[in-house]
Amino acid sequence: MSELIERLAAGLPAEAVLTDPDVVRSYANDMAGFCPAGAPAVVVLPRTVEQVQHVMRTANALRVPVVPQGARTGLSGAANATEGCVVLSLVRMDRILHIDPVDRIAVVEPGVVNATLSRAVAEHGLFYPPDPSSWEMCTIGGNIGTASGGLCCVKYGVTAEYVLGLDVVLADGRLLTTGRRTAKGVAGYDLTRLIVGSEGSLGIVVRATLALKTAPPRQLALAAEFPSADAACDAVCRIMAAGHTPSLLELMDRTTLRAVNDMTKMGLPETTEALLLAAFDTPDPGPHLEAVGELCTAAGASQVVPAEDAAESEMLLAARRTALTALEAVKGTSMIDDVCVPRTRLAELLKGTAQIAERHGLTIGVCAHAGDGNTHPTVCFDPSDEDEARRARLSFDEIMKLGLELGGTITGEHGVGLLKKSWLAEELGPVSLELHRGIKQVFDPHGILNPGKVF
Amino acid sequence: MSELIERLAAGLPAEAVLTDPDVVRSYANDMAGFCPAGAPAVVVLPRTVEQVQHVMRTANALRVPVVPQGARTGLSGAANATEGCVVLSLVRMDRILHIDPVDRIAVVEPGVVNATLSRAVAEHGLFYPPDPSSWEMCTIGGNIGTASGGLCCVKYGVTAEYVLGLDVVLADGRLLTTGRRTAKGVAGYDLTRLIVGSEGSLGIVVRATLALKTAPPRQLALAAEFPSADAACDAVCRIMAAGHTPSLLELMDRTTLRAVNDMTKMGLPETTEALLLAAFDTPDPGPHLEAVGELCTAAGASQVVPAEDAAESEMLLAARRTALTALEAVKGTSMIDDVCVPRTRLAELLKGTAQIAERHGLTIGVCAHAGDGNTHPTVCFDPSDEDEARRARLSFDEIMKLGLELGGTITGEHGVGLLKKSWLAEELGPVSLELHRGIKQVFDPHGILNPGKVF
Repeated sequence: MSELIERLAAGLPAEAVLTDPDVVRSYANDMAGFCPAGAPAVVVLPRTVEQVQHVMRTANALRVPVVPQGARTGLSGAANATEGCVVLSLVRMDRILHIDPVDRIAVVEPGVVNATLSRAVAEHGLFYPPDPSSWEMCTIGGNIGTASGGLCCVKYGVTAEYVLGLDVVLADGRLLTTGRRTAKGVAGYDLTRLIVGSEGSLGIVVRATLALKTAPPRQLALAAEFPSADAACDAVCRIMAAGHTPSLLELMDRTTLRAVNDMTKMGLPETTEALLLAAFDTPDPGPHLEAVGELCTAAGASQVVPAEDAAESEMLLAARRTALTALEAVKGTSMIDDVCVPRTRLAELLKGTAQIAERHGLTIGVCAHAGDGNTHPTVCFDPSDEDEARRARLSFDEIMKLGLELGGTITGEHGVGLLKKSWLAEELGPVSLELHRGIKQVFDPHGILNPGKVF
Repeated sequence: MSELIERLAAGLPAEAVLTDPDVVRSYANDMAGFCPAGAPAVVVLPRTVEQVQHVMRTANALRVPVVPQGARTGLSGAANATEGCVVLSLVRMDRILHIDPVDRIAVVEPGVVNATLSRAVAEHGLFYPPDPSSWEMCTIGGNIGTASGGLCCVKYGVTAEYVLGLDVVLADGRLLTTGRRTAKGVAGYDLTRLIVGSEGSLGIVVRATLALKTAPPRQLALAAEFPSADAACDAVCRIMAAGHTPSLLELMDRTTLRAVNDMTKMGLPETTEALLLAAFDTPDPGPHLEAVGELCTAAGASQVVPAEDAAESEMLLAARRTALTALEAVKGTSMIDDVCVPRTRLAELLKGTAQIAERHGLTIGVCAHAGDGNTHPTVCFDPSDEDEARRARLSFDEIMKLGLELGGTITGEHGVGLLKKSWLAEELGPVSLELHRGIKQVFDPHGILNPGKVF
């Protein structure tokens, strides 16, 4: 037994230390494609803060890299193992410690699954908005690591906006407490937000205090069919300019619709070029939906179909939630971009993406959180076709370049991980990058926390 | 002419460099009491980013401290001059550069006055929520520096939640761009939020991209009179537990009511122990107000008075907005605390504050953003009475201690500045403080940016 494993085992229960090579190898990857992963030396599954501190103290003493993991549903390779690392899986720290309807907070451990928390707070009439497509699997710790989003963001924002305070085990094992349990608080630098989205590179989140909202009424949706992506994007701009605040505003292009139909047999319209889903969760959504329907028609929609009720609305949403999985099935694998542009530039991004697909002879389906300008152009390719895989990677990068040219960002909600590391430098520029490195050095002087990720 | 002034003048128009000792001295303070201020060596008033860069390069080369200032309405001494410093006033960088109703953003310079921006975006049907009491005077740059709040926060949150991206001149004069213009974005560490609330200690904000909301309907308010602070706090908890989201939920105690009457002759009820103001800005506020009125009655309100219309609601708000000024007038001066506790602990904070006032034989008026648990216990005292001033300072500290004991923070929205520096260390603890120092060192290795403030 290596010194590393021996010292880890000295402070952990036997069942919390996995060393079987096959088992350990199964923890090597998250769900991103094109990202290298090494073989972990060991996987640890602590249940307490003290155990996490023990892991970090040990790894720090031996200068062994530590890769924190949640459910490994990430799409950027941030949770991929590095050769010889300790994989620190937080999935067994999965307790909801406190839910308070007056303070409207939940205190949770990082391994709580997003959907579990959402259902638990719903029992108190409360609402935890962030809803990544993987919400039935992904963990709150992972959501915090990547500052992930979802369908709700156009009205409710991303994970970051719901994190009030954190307990974080630092690289050297010390415990840092950030933020607050109060509704407001501005004491000192905002270390909470610095940790959120840092993809495990600054510390290990072991507890989070989350802000909750009152549960809104169930949302009511409409679907609008457009003869072109341009017209659908025009509708998005008209809807936002008119002052509406939908609870979701999603776009699926024809490739996506067909893929979803192939997978789910839902019978979505395949002749249309772009389908827009809009929903409202206000007490009286009817007039909003009617106004949005009229704006869609004015922008050129060929058909506007309001859902009959909340159940039918939920079905439309379910279609949208399966989009990425369905696109992956088209050719066996896919690369999912996450470019976010100002809403006013959305049409240009979609047009440019179509041109990139054509130039490379590729299928690129686009689904988008259109109300946020956050698109997921998804490059479908056969991984066994080497040239197609090369062109897929090229097109993936060209889409990010286009996003930056349009005043956007390379990642709206999936994070940087390994996949977009070189593009992050492009987006941030050298001054910002230097400050990033300086901050990393302050938190993790020996560079053991998720090394080689983000920047 | 000193070398400092000579070199500053070489890159600035003559009218941007103030050296007259009387004029310079008039820039020494913000609005906080009990905070020492030194005499600035010079005041500079740049109009461009390049001029700010020149100022910082010069100060950095000569290792001269720089104290950034907005309207100096701050309440913690963060904008107070240090001896021999360069006061860098941003008030002449006061242009609104861009307002976009589709992207729902505004791009502004730091010297724009909060109310000016609010009115400008209102012309586009948009809404910039943060509304500190000083909103007619305070600048967006100052709001960002202190992450300031206001009456809106119970529904709309603090300044930090509206800052999407920043241009920041660093200590050495380099320009840093943070964040984004898009609705979402998670690329890299959240340097935007790190700068917000850093009170000028990490860099000089020279441009901000702000998120806007659709303008809500004008709010409709009610006032409820309570026989005790306890009963009013109970009403706050009942309102929040019932799932309401008022657009404001404010409390004024008897001392505050009397002070406001003395100043404004508004005829607020003086026999009641606590007045609660609740408002809703939904399309149909009537049923919400009715339900809240019933909850107030159930909690023991002796009287519930709904406003007749939006104008009468505005009058009630105006009363609340004058509270701090009115309390200051009671005995010539005041110290305004800013303790925020979980809503569930609000009653304990008010009871403890009353005991502190009694123990020290002092008048302490309390107005509070009750819906946030954010209180402003305001110690009224005669500054010429040395012993009273000493007791005022003691009671001010005891209230912060109590706030921390109740799981709260020493500052909900005013910042730390000089006034709460020693208490910040108490709230953060040694691990967090060490990280704060490390981050400060990364941004400002020579310690020239607002030295001696915050921590």
